[in-house]
Amino acid sequence: MSALPKIKIGIVGATGYTGVELLRLLANHPNAEVTAITSRGEAGIHIADYFPNLRHVYDLHFQTPDEAGLDQCDVVFFATPHGVAMQDAPALLEKGVRVIDLSADYRLQDVPVWEHWYKHQHSSTDTLKEAVYGLCEMNRESIAKARLIAVPGCYPTCVSLALLPLLKAGTLQEGKPLIADCKSGVSGAGRKASVGTLFCEAGDNFKAYGVAGHRHLPEIKQTLNRLQAGVADGFVFVPHLTPMIRGMHATTYVHLKPGTDPLALLNDFYQGSPFVDVMPYGSTPETRSVRGANICRISVQQAPESDLWILMSVQDNLVKGAAGQAVQNMNIMYGLPETTGLQTTPLLP
Amino acid sequence: MSALPKIKIGIVGATGYTGVELLRLLANHPNAEVTAITSRGEAGIHIADYFPNLRHVYDLHFQTPDEAGLDQCDVVFFATPHGVAMQDAPALLEKGVRVIDLSADYRLQDVPVWEHWYKHQHSSTDTLKEAVYGLCEMNRESIAKARLIAVPGCYPTCVSLALLPLLKAGTLQEGKPLIADCKSGVSGAGRKASVGTLFCEAGDNFKAYGVAGHRHLPEIKQTLNRLQAGVADGFVFVPHLTPMIRGMHATTYVHLKPGTDPLALLNDFYQGSPFVDVMPYGSTPETRSVRGANICRISVQQAPESDLWILMSVQDNLVKGAAGQAVQNMNIMYGLPETTGLQTTPLLP
Amino acid sequence: MSALPKIKIGIVGATGYTGVELLRLLANHPNAEVTAITSRGEAGIHIADYFPNLRHVYDLHFQTPDEAGLDQCDVVFFATPHGVAMQDAPALLEKGVRVIDLSADYRLQDVPVWEHWYKHQHSSTDTLKEAVYGLCEMNRESIAKARLIAVPGCYPTCVSLALLPLLKAGTLQEGKPLIADCKSGVSGAGRKASVGTLFCEAGDNFKAYGVAGHRHLPEIKQTLNRLQAGVADGFVFVPHLTPMIRGMHATTYVHLKPGTDPLALLNDFYQGSPFVDVMPYGSTPETRSVRGANICRISVQQAPESDLWILMSVQDNLVKGAAGQAVQNMNIMYGLPETTGLQTTPLLP
Amino acid sequence: MSALPKIKIGIVGATGYTGVELLRLLANHPNAEVTAITSRGEAGIHIADYFPNLRHVYDLHFQTPDEAGLDQCDVVFFATPHGVAMQDAPALLEKGVRVIDLSADYRLQDVPVWEHWYKHQHSSTDTLKEAVYGLCEMNRESIAKARLIAVPGCYPTCVSLALLPLLKAGTLQEGKPLIADCKSGVSGAGRKASVGTLFCEAGDNFKAYGVAGHRHLPEIKQTLNRLQAGVADGFVFVPHLTPMIRGMHATTYVHLKPGTDPLALLNDFYQGSPFVDVMPYGSTPETRSVRGANICRISVQQAPESDLWILMSVQDNLVKGAAGQAVQNMNIMYGLPETTGLQTTPLLP
Repeated sequence: MSALPKIKIGIVGATGYTGVELLRLLANHPNAEVTAITSRGEAGIHIADYFPNLRHVYDLHFQTPDEAGLDQCDVVFFATPHGVAMQDAPALLEKGVRVIDLSADYRLQDVPVWEHWYKHQHSSTDTLKEAVYGLCEMNRESIAKARLIAVPGCYPTCVSLALLPLLKAGTLQEGKPLIADCKSGVSGAGRKASVGTLFCEAGDNFKAYGVAGHRHLPEIKQTLNRLQAGVADGFVFVPHLTPMIRGMHATTYVHLKPGTDPLALLNDFYQGSPFVDVMPYGSTPETRSVRGANICRISVQQAPESDLWILMSVQDNLVKGAAGQAVQNMNIMYGLPETTGLQTTPLLP
Repeated sequence: MSALPKIKIGIVGATGYTGVELLRLLANHPNAEVTAITSRGEAGIHIADYFPNLRHVYDLHFQTPDEAGLDQCDVVFFATPHGVAMQDAPALLEKGVRVIDLSADYRLQDVPVWEHWYKHQHSSTDTLKEAVYGLCEMNRESIAKARLIAVPGCYPTCVSLALLPLLKAGTLQEGKPLIADCKSGVSGAGRKASVGTLFCEAGDNFKAYGVAGHRHLPEIKQTLNRLQAGVADGFVFVPHLTPMIRGMHATTYVHLKPGTDPLALLNDFYQGSPFVDVMPYGSTPETRSVRGANICRISVQQAPESDLWILMSVQDNLVKGAAGQAVQNMNIMYGLPETTGLQTTPLLP
Repeated sequence: MSALPKIKIGIVGATGYTGVELLRLLANHPNAEVTAITSRGEAGIHIADYFPNLRHVYDLHFQTPDEAGLDQCDVVFFATPHGVAMQDAPALLEKGVRVIDLSADYRLQDVPVWEHWYKHQHSSTDTLKEAVYGLCEMNRESIAKARLIAVPGCYPTCVSLALLPLLKAGTLQEGKPLIADCKSGVSGAGRKASVGTLFCEAGDNFKAYGVAGHRHLPEIKQTLNRLQAGVADGFVFVPHLTPMIRGMHATTYVHLKPGTDPLALLNDFYQGSPFVDVMPYGSTPETRSVRGANICRISVQQAPESDLWILMSVQDNLVKGAAGQAVQNMNIMYGLPETTGLQTTPLLP
Repeated sequence: MSALPKIKIGIVGATGYTGVELLRLLANHPNAEVTAITSRGEAGIHIADYFPNLRHVYDLHFQTPDEAGLDQCDVVFFATPHGVAMQDAPALLEKGVRVIDLSADYRLQDVPVWEHWYKHQHSSTDTLKEAVYGLCEMNRESIAKARLIAVPGCYPTCVSLALLPLLKAGTLQEGKPLIADCKSGVSGAGRKASVGTLFCEAGDNFKAYGVAGHRHLPEIKQTLNRLQAGVADGFVFVPHLTPMIRGMHATTYVHLKPGTDPLALLNDFYQGSPFVDVMPYGSTPETRSVRGANICRISVQQAPESDLWILMSVQDNLVKGAAGQAVQNMNIMYGLPETTGLQTTPLLP
């Protein structure tokens, strides 16, 4: 396998947590070679002066996008805030470069909805049409043929993977509430200087946020609508911030149609999916059990003295919820085994 | 006020976190004097060798229950695992000592339900009948006349305070789901040596637990049943462990009858309650905002694009969820201002 | 005591952690009333919208320094970065307002040294001469007569309190190394948005910083020089950042003259000092044992198989290391019992 | 390389943190196959029910040592408390099995010293003589020929690697203090249920421990004595517990002979050592920069206004300080490239 020429990779916006995580994962990928990392603000700085874990792992300096020669890459990952990929992706695609966008720019097919939630005009609506939503376990076949991937958001990945088999089978009760109570580690907020995510603000603290409306709400609803009609309307999503660095836990409350066996559906659906682990009845997944690895673990249980079902799903928000899933998409696009470079054992404790 | 003779207080089982928290709070109570602390296992040890924050605060040694002369106290607090208070409380009550039980022994009036959930025979069913459920904001008047208080569990306090005004007004839709997704700091699990709550197990980790049935479920249901018929059946309760020392957050999803103004109901109901803080629309309470203080903060909000309402309530599980609420009960029992000794400003950061 | 008119207090720069901590402590001070808080950037904002723990504790808005009428205060605390107090204190002093400066402006009597370390011209060198270094246990008498207090830095407080009795007795060996290896919680870095103190950067991490020279080095040396000649030259100071919110631990390695009994000296010296707790041989102080309280605990021990002595001292960097010590200074200045408003029991766990 | 037969590995005492870490590392080792894991207490339990990160990584059950057929292994790792390896290693060695002991049993060549510090009679003093101290960068050649390795303790590894080149060159001043102020994450205390390492005891807290004498003191002194005479007498060692899961930081204060260039010595010595990273002047290593990886990073700096030198060294206590170093020893014993299976990129954030 490693005799093949390596995939030449550029990363735009490699100064954030998804950027450093991409670099960590790609360092062990036998078919990949990162050839350029860009950052306008940090051009000239060695990656190891920025991320001390990468000392002697990469010998790369940040470059401006102009210097970087991204059009010489085979794939460019965008690990940027929204608004960047939609500017730069079309030209790259035109030159035959594939694009894997970890930002939100190509996630929502409905332009007005995107513009409403992101308060920004969408400048790449034509290209948007060919973007494939990179939830690998849902869209493997279209990913394999895609030039442009919109990597799902962290919450949408965690919630959607738990629901996917149940929605595909049409087993949710329409018109009933569907509630995702989600908890994220602080790295989900990114690496920008801000008071709210200081150690002394986010530490030893728990709170909800974005209750009045979080940008991942329409993204999850889009997936619900694609899979089972009549379910999205009842959807409620509350994200919370929990004092840990990595990790995400979704607790999803669903009404299932009588006779549904959700565990059987999950087991069946994820048979051939190496990165989704369906746990037996009675299990409760823990975020630390996936720390650093591209795994989503799911457990399902009926609520005691109730007919509601509870889905619990966990992932490392930076891996399966971002950089790991992005690499998984790349593997599928290049016909590589889906697990190439991604078989890390989670770090516990 | 401080000219009055002080209330003589005994604490049974003062080696745990609710015990040390009682001691911390009572140290600043102008009308209270702790005269005895008991522990079979630690008899003879100075409290300061056990809890270094109490050096020079108390000059007390642990005693066995026999030596301690608890029947000379005015009030005895039980900060024990279940099964202890039901053994010892009746004799104390008989001698005129009041009892404030922080354990679960007197919380459930339905004996078979108690025995089912606690896997233990109830040996004090007569005394149980006179026990008052010490949710102060619900039962102030009966607390004032009580000899025996069952201090509510931490989760039941946090969830019930958010729902109380809505239930009293009969505004929940019957037959609809009522979901409390709760998150607790690790101190809720107590101070016993156990692998699951080690720093390296509970740290940097998030998980649900007790999903198949937690002992606070029947306790919350009891309160629901007392306040609004037809609501308890739809109740779902999922507790989670979050990596912080103190703090509890309940996110409660409710169906309200059309026309209900939940914020007005909350504001109205808690007008005269110094320890419940109803926050304006758009607020999200944070656990750190009540750290160390006897406060429950509540916020309510409609879910975006939905007709469900979301209640968020936070408390310090060791204070309003345990020791602080116990002292508040004592204040009410003794006709003291409810806030006596409890006006600490929360510790932030 | 509380029949006396209250001390009217202004706080300049109340948006940081020492500011909120001053507000927390003064809320329970029977002789104090905060009448003004200033912040240019946040003028108009209610304190509770800024610090949620202060909801219903204060009804104050931030004001610009001009609006705030600081000259109507009895005392003004500066909880500002360096450079502010030296601008504004002289005019306040002239109007009879006392000043307690928590910044570094008046800590070093040697102006060139100050200017070297702070890279800033000192604009208040006349006023500097009357500034009293507010290490209460060292300078009680001059504090009682002072108009202007320079509250010591957090590290200097923690290190100096451990050494004070030994230096006063002249028991350190001159010309020998004197090493303070110090560890601070992250709140010591303040509340400003910066990448280095993000939860995901400072969490689960330990590192030294300022090894090439930290501003508290000359401050500690000034104290050493005042107390025992020939000791400062050997002084080495290495601060480290440890992943906790509050707390500071100094491990100080000293060569003592033969025959010295350091524990006896410490016990003797701190007899009448309510906020320094000298622990018996064999104790190891823990930062959590002083969390939220104005206490420094000290233990001393001979290194095994060595003639070096090890001093261990802990404090809450925001309390005894900053705001608490500032209030203690105020108490001394006003002839109040030193403990007024400061008798909080530490919060554990 | 992977065409060779795999090394068959047994792990005794795989229920602790060094055990799970060995399993994590060996899962990615191309030449290794774990064939047996033993635990008397947990026999019959599947490894994944014990360590959820190992689900689908291993299909192994704990066995009693008798069932496990350890004598069929090529190498047996002991990840046990002291006292176990000395019982079982001799018989294994006799059958041709190599032994890598992560416990303290074979670390000290001086039996009375061992018995003094471990309060235990040494029952394997003959075998002890052939044990090689597995500090790879010091003893590569003897490790390559060894049958029995004593993997160094975590503190000794971190301190000794910083000093090794300086001691080899004889550059420390004899008769002068040599102080190692060390800070460890909580996982160093192991996975046993104990109050002191509960999340609510060890969290948000910093303290020294073992000040009166820690078992790693004689181990470090043994290394000092082997490398430069006259240095061990001045050695002082104070370990501290810091609230993080993994990571160790040693701050070592040394007197160097005039004219010594410590950075040049370090750079020279570690030229061919893939797992020691000597950083340039002015760097401060951070524990997170090595999280999960078999790396020790070292920086050296002169103390400001002093002639003392400060060595800062960091490692992941469970990897380079335990399981990783053990695997590195195995690689050397088997003539494999030292980095085989150990080239993980550290996990940051």
